[in-house]
Amino acid sequence: MADDYEFGTLRVAVSEDGVAQVEIHRPEALNAFSSQVWQELGACFGRVKRDGRVRCVVLSAAGRMFTAGLDLKEAAAGPLGRARGGDGDSDVARQGYYHRLFILEFQDAISAIETCDKPVIAVVHGACLGIGIDVISACDVRVAAADAYFVVKEVDIGMAADIGTLQRLPKVVGNDSWVREVCYTARAVTAKEAQLVGLVSRVLPTRAEALEAGTAMAAAIAAKSPVAVASTKHLLNYSRDHSVREGLEYTAVWNTLAHNSKDMATAIMASLQKKQARFPNL
Amino acid sequence: MADDYEFGTLRVAVSEDGVAQVEIHRPEALNAFSSQVWQELGACFGRVKRDGRVRCVVLSAAGRMFTAGLDLKEAAAGPLGRARGGDGDSDVARQGYYHRLFILEFQDAISAIETCDKPVIAVVHGACLGIGIDVISACDVRVAAADAYFVVKEVDIGMAADIGTLQRLPKVVGNDSWVREVCYTARAVTAKEAQLVGLVSRVLPTRAEALEAGTAMAAAIAAKSPVAVASTKHLLNYSRDHSVREGLEYTAVWNTLAHNSKDMATAIMASLQKKQARFPNL
Amino acid sequence: MADDYEFGTLRVAVSEDGVAQVEIHRPEALNAFSSQVWQELGACFGRVKRDGRVRCVVLSAAGRMFTAGLDLKEAAAGPLGRARGGDGDSDVARQGYYHRLFILEFQDAISAIETCDKPVIAVVHGACLGIGIDVISACDVRVAAADAYFVVKEVDIGMAADIGTLQRLPKVVGNDSWVREVCYTARAVTAKEAQLVGLVSRVLPTRAEALEAGTAMAAAIAAKSPVAVASTKHLLNYSRDHSVREGLEYTAVWNTLAHNSKDMATAIMASLQKKQARFPNL
Amino acid sequence: MADDYEFGTLRVAVSEDGVAQVEIHRPEALNAFSSQVWQELGACFGRVKRDGRVRCVVLSAAGRMFTAGLDLKEAAAGPLGRARGGDGDSDVARQGYYHRLFILEFQDAISAIETCDKPVIAVVHGACLGIGIDVISACDVRVAAADAYFVVKEVDIGMAADIGTLQRLPKVVGNDSWVREVCYTARAVTAKEAQLVGLVSRVLPTRAEALEAGTAMAAAIAAKSPVAVASTKHLLNYSRDHSVREGLEYTAVWNTLAHNSKDMATAIMASLQKKQARFPNL
Amino acid sequence: MADDYEFGTLRVAVSEDGVAQVEIHRPEALNAFSSQVWQELGACFGRVKRDGRVRCVVLSAAGRMFTAGLDLKEAAAGPLGRARGGDGDSDVARQGYYHRLFILEFQDAISAIETCDKPVIAVVHGACLGIGIDVISACDVRVAAADAYFVVKEVDIGMAADIGTLQRLPKVVGNDSWVREVCYTARAVTAKEAQLVGLVSRVLPTRAEALEAGTAMAAAIAAKSPVAVASTKHLLNYSRDHSVREGLEYTAVWNTLAHNSKDMATAIMASLQKKQARFPNL
Amino acid sequence: MADDYEFGTLRVAVSEDGVAQVEIHRPEALNAFSSQVWQELGACFGRVKRDGRVRCVVLSAAGRMFTAGLDLKEAAAGPLGRARGGDGDSDVARQGYYHRLFILEFQDAISAIETCDKPVIAVVHGACLGIGIDVISACDVRVAAADAYFVVKEVDIGMAADIGTLQRLPKVVGNDSWVREVCYTARAVTAKEAQLVGLVSRVLPTRAEALEAGTAMAAAIAAKSPVAVASTKHLLNYSRDHSVREGLEYTAVWNTLAHNSKDMATAIMASLQKKQARFPNL
Repeated sequence: MADDYEFGTLRVAVSEDGVAQVEIHRPEALNAFSSQVWQELGACFGRVKRDGRVRCVVLSAAGRMFTAGLDLKEAAAGPLGRARGGDGDSDVARQGYYHRLFILEFQDAISAIETCDKPVIAVVHGACLGIGIDVISACDVRVAAADAYFVVKEVDIGMAADIGTLQRLPKVVGNDSWVREVCYTARAVTAKEAQLVGLVSRVLPTRAEALEAGTAMAAAIAAKSPVAVASTKHLLNYSRDHSVREGLEYTAVWNTLAHNSKDMATAIMASLQKKQARFPNL
Repeated sequence: MADDYEFGTLRVAVSEDGVAQVEIHRPEALNAFSSQVWQELGACFGRVKRDGRVRCVVLSAAGRMFTAGLDLKEAAAGPLGRARGGDGDSDVARQGYYHRLFILEFQDAISAIETCDKPVIAVVHGACLGIGIDVISACDVRVAAADAYFVVKEVDIGMAADIGTLQRLPKVVGNDSWVREVCYTARAVTAKEAQLVGLVSRVLPTRAEALEAGTAMAAAIAAKSPVAVASTKHLLNYSRDHSVREGLEYTAVWNTLAHNSKDMATAIMASLQKKQARFPNL
Repeated sequence: MADDYEFGTLRVAVSEDGVAQVEIHRPEALNAFSSQVWQELGACFGRVKRDGRVRCVVLSAAGRMFTAGLDLKEAAAGPLGRARGGDGDSDVARQGYYHRLFILEFQDAISAIETCDKPVIAVVHGACLGIGIDVISACDVRVAAADAYFVVKEVDIGMAADIGTLQRLPKVVGNDSWVREVCYTARAVTAKEAQLVGLVSRVLPTRAEALEAGTAMAAAIAAKSPVAVASTKHLLNYSRDHSVREGLEYTAVWNTLAHNSKDMATAIMASLQKKQARFPNL
Repeated sequence: MADDYEFGTLRVAVSEDGVAQVEIHRPEALNAFSSQVWQELGACFGRVKRDGRVRCVVLSAAGRMFTAGLDLKEAAAGPLGRARGGDGDSDVARQGYYHRLFILEFQDAISAIETCDKPVIAVVHGACLGIGIDVISACDVRVAAADAYFVVKEVDIGMAADIGTLQRLPKVVGNDSWVREVCYTARAVTAKEAQLVGLVSRVLPTRAEALEAGTAMAAAIAAKSPVAVASTKHLLNYSRDHSVREGLEYTAVWNTLAHNSKDMATAIMASLQKKQARFPNL
Repeated sequence: MADDYEFGTLRVAVSEDGVAQVEIHRPEALNAFSSQVWQELGACFGRVKRDGRVRCVVLSAAGRMFTAGLDLKEAAAGPLGRARGGDGDSDVARQGYYHRLFILEFQDAISAIETCDKPVIAVVHGACLGIGIDVISACDVRVAAADAYFVVKEVDIGMAADIGTLQRLPKVVGNDSWVREVCYTARAVTAKEAQLVGLVSRVLPTRAEALEAGTAMAAAIAAKSPVAVASTKHLLNYSRDHSVREGLEYTAVWNTLAHNSKDMATAIMASLQKKQARFPNL
Repeated sequence: MADDYEFGTLRVAVSEDGVAQVEIHRPEALNAFSSQVWQELGACFGRVKRDGRVRCVVLSAAGRMFTAGLDLKEAAAGPLGRARGGDGDSDVARQGYYHRLFILEFQDAISAIETCDKPVIAVVHGACLGIGIDVISACDVRVAAADAYFVVKEVDIGMAADIGTLQRLPKVVGNDSWVREVCYTARAVTAKEAQLVGLVSRVLPTRAEALEAGTAMAAAIAAKSPVAVASTKHLLNYSRDHSVREGLEYTAVWNTLAHNSKDMATAIMASLQKKQARFPNL
């Protein structure tokens, strides 16, 4: 089963207790996002969604930093490059038709973090630039090492962020004045400031400690009923995008099914007996 | 008129100045939410909506804590219990049809706090568990005693919260990383932390002081034009669930009527004369 | 071209580097919002939208304070006054039909700040009352002098705020308990408290220093690609009002066009050469 | 159980095969809608929703016509009357606050036809005026006697229809030019024209034949799986009000539960054996 | 007052009984839509909205046909022309930024027909091509002369219709198979076929008779309460774009104001006395 | 390239002029929808979307009928079967979690017809049952042979249709009374009746003639600008699911790009020269 998660730019390991460690592993390129990275990330979380063993995910990165952002060299040669022109005799509208499909595909890969139904805890160290913000905004919880810093870098390469930052960051951090400032200026944000505005939940001295803290939280979540946890994530996402009334109505239908789970009896029984409950995989 | 508010599990008193004190009063059961509690809460706020005397509400609880959460004993015997199975030969789809209606009814009772159009100030002391979070998230303002603590407890009984927490908490607190952490882990949050993330506005040393502070705020609100205050609450709720443009358009229609109120002339006159205005009931 | 921005109650100057200084200038009346003020404000930002020279705006006010709020004297004589009654024999529904159009026109003027596609940095000093909150909530970033204070004043004149505060303030500040408290009580909020809850990004000792800080931020933004910055503002506004999925899809279509801008090549080239890029006007 | 459906202005009978006959029975007043009529109608369909015996409903009216519309005499004396004025010294905004609740209550009563989850077949004869159109637009299928005629009468009493006609009629009939013409002119529409535009499905020579046809259709529906039929109605209503994508996603959650019904095995088995399946009540 | 409606390409006359005749009058160019035509059309309906004398509008065209569509000569030289290229060294993204504003402005002009709140009856004769379909789809009711024919012409000039046809035509005609066929093939539709699918309500032998029929309908509408008629149009438009529930709630707020109109008493009194009521202007 | 479209249950051929003939080819099983059929259908239209040669699609079926509906034998053994029970000791909530993913996957496959951006013309002969209605509702235009008949069959197998019929059929046919009747009763609809209500555009005597008519229409569409046609389909779908205002705004952004196509100049030039334009592939 392990080979399910064989990737060129990711290292994935699933622990006994249901925590998947997903590490972006392209340290020699400062974890720059080539197409391979985001395509594999999308594929990985697609598998996580259907893998009953996985109950919670820790997403981290190898090497000196979380990510230097988009792989500009590849981008310059790829669809983005073509879209920017050069190919003077082709039709802008026809190029655009396929370029839009390319953006949507890229977005879908990152959104897989959100739609995989298992909580994802991002552990950030060093630089987290550009597409890095799109990625961590799609995660559920963010923990940082003290050396982490964050830059919504896109305006500095002459474009608006389009893989999720502008959609999710303002819904993740309740300080619109701050969100807009960092999106317009591309200034660096320290781990400390990130914690102050709520972008990250905790700051630990080192990457190792941050990873440990994130993993401990993941283990705590993995010990809960996977039906309850996956339902909670799914319903939080749905409710963010709907009115309270629509969120309540959808939740009622969802739980009408989920309440059939034996996990409820198991959990209540364990609670009365002051024991730790154990739940089967999803 | 007092008997309008005669309930078995609530104590209600309306002061001369238009502040209704609603106390959840089932201290012997740690204010656990039996059906009676939430049905009476729904009925109570339904009456508040149409009671012109009431201009603002303080919602508190009697005894050792705000609430221990859902009454699990009753739930185990009731619809939740049935939904969980045991009744092996009945049809899951048919059971589910009625179970969904039950969840919707429960949701509506708590949503009555939100739809009553009069601001509701929650005063929390001691434990506030599970359904307690659903309840205070539906209130307008939250004040706490120093001993208060908060737990989104539902995953610990094997289910996703379904009475409003997942819909309202993320819109009440602008720190999604924190919201998701506490929803997935069911860890306890102190009053101090609750204030830091904005779940509560103020923390007072004791329940009595918190109640006093909440009541003072309620009295200040009750002294304002009840047309202006009820309109403000109604429009805040509407606007939360719509785009800015839709919110503005609805507000324009609403105020086209509300601007006919004599309260505007009264208020402006009093303001010019540096007097305290007095407004008739709604 | 300068005469494009000749107004009676505004002073406008556009610097070489693309920063427009817009100053509300009716100090003798404490910058109270007469119809002229908001109509000129709407017209001004309508021009900003189509003026390629302008890349970022600083909005401040002359004299003792940002604004004392609505010009009550004028309002009492104008449409609001008429709507409030007195004209006993006219038809409430007919009056209301036109009064609604008046509110919508007023709203549109303030919304022009939001829809002008260039970031607007509000610099607030002294009192910022009533309509002042509607105005700064429609801005992108808020900076304050230490003497600034903020009051959602509308309930004190017997009405619900209807020019944007109830729609935008809760989406600007992620602390609903606080938002509702200040909307219901009309209590004053200091600059310090405003920073704590995220209403303002920074507090500087004096108006001059706040203006300087706001202008510096504006200059930094004006040096970026105007295509990237205007796209970012436009997409942040769109995404606030839509689900994440709808925001992503709209962004993909938008950027399919914007990615044709030569600014991307310019920016990446400059970045590789460690030079400061220069971008043509929008 | 029969007494569940004891009403002053309705006659209700539930047949063995699950068809409820609901007859508006106020012939002496031409079935004019007094408050009693619509309140009882709302209560009746509220019971239908939770009554497992009822699988389909036929809604008809006694006497010379379906309905002459709103009971104007009562309305003139009631809330509509008060809202129209006369009570010169009361506050328009305060009156309006409660009048809005009255309209919502009236709307909810008629919407109960739509939300009861069992298909409702309207059988119309003679005049169907004003509120009659609101009522039949909330039904699923409309059958008419040859003498039926239809008038969206509200503009003739100086108001816009507000109990559902303007919301539902354009979604029931796919001819907007026709819908708007009849809403603006209040002209009478014959049964034949009604059939041509799709307002009614069939026209039968007499009321008796129309009732027979409606009842036969109801019996055919009542013989199907009540889980399948109620789900179909619920999902048609949901999907009308949402995008195709949202409709599909909601449907997937709903059917995840409903597919647990034993009715599917029963139906398929019967189909293979060329027998008539029999399904338990909902 | 007549000079309010002085236009170069429109002839406007308002009759005593409140019917405005708006005639597109550029017969020498087959009523081709130059910028002047649509800008004046937008301005005209903006005035209609605020002109209490106008209660209903008849929109027709002078000369041989309703319209030959967009003025291609002007378009080729104007913004569309520029957008199509030629200006090789300018930036596609910058051009596009302003071109989008141009499209929105054009859309707004045609949408003014819909947002003017007075019913608009289109009378079509001869060819109605391209933009002509956008225009008549924004009207309330469509009447045709026998020689009228309709073509969704845009695909034939290499573009998708963008001024309203793709938004409104499918909501005006309840036959999606037909709508899509005519939008993809640009085939001509006769008046007879148009009536069959519901695009037009009536077909009269000649332009004169169609105009007479349209005017008679307009006069009938103009004799009704203008509060009731304008409310009906406004609410039909709102409800088309919202769920039934949202439509009902908005209607309740709207009518809470509109029910204050004296027109209701006037109308009911006249009805009881079998007289024709007379209502003051809006 | 032809092998791109090698499928077990589909026959696909793309003509020189850009018309793809897609034939459901499982005649020995009456074209019953096994998983293979819908998975291949989804894959096929996914390829059509990105295949610039294909400009229009004709979807038909081989053998005696269009389709007998879902392959019940396979379904009984597959996920539907499992969901229905039998596997007594597994957890209903866990089963349901994966069953929902299965339904969504099935829906996505059929929705690919809608999202492929090239018009799809369904040619129906013989029986078109159950899933057949889901399929043709997702097509753009429907043409039928005289022997065609249509049944919304799902209630007869004890379930609500969940692959698109309940979402799309009411938006395809503007006669809600008819739609609901056929969804609740599962009665057969003849080709003639289908044409009368607008489900199909044309009825031809035989399958061969219907195919010829559908192909002729497809060829006419394929001769148009593929940018214009794909844009029109995409915008019709978007606009169906949004308010008119949202549809217009999205269209403006879309066409800002599409107006850069050289097809506009080509088309206008050809039109002026009375020649047939030729457009490159998308």
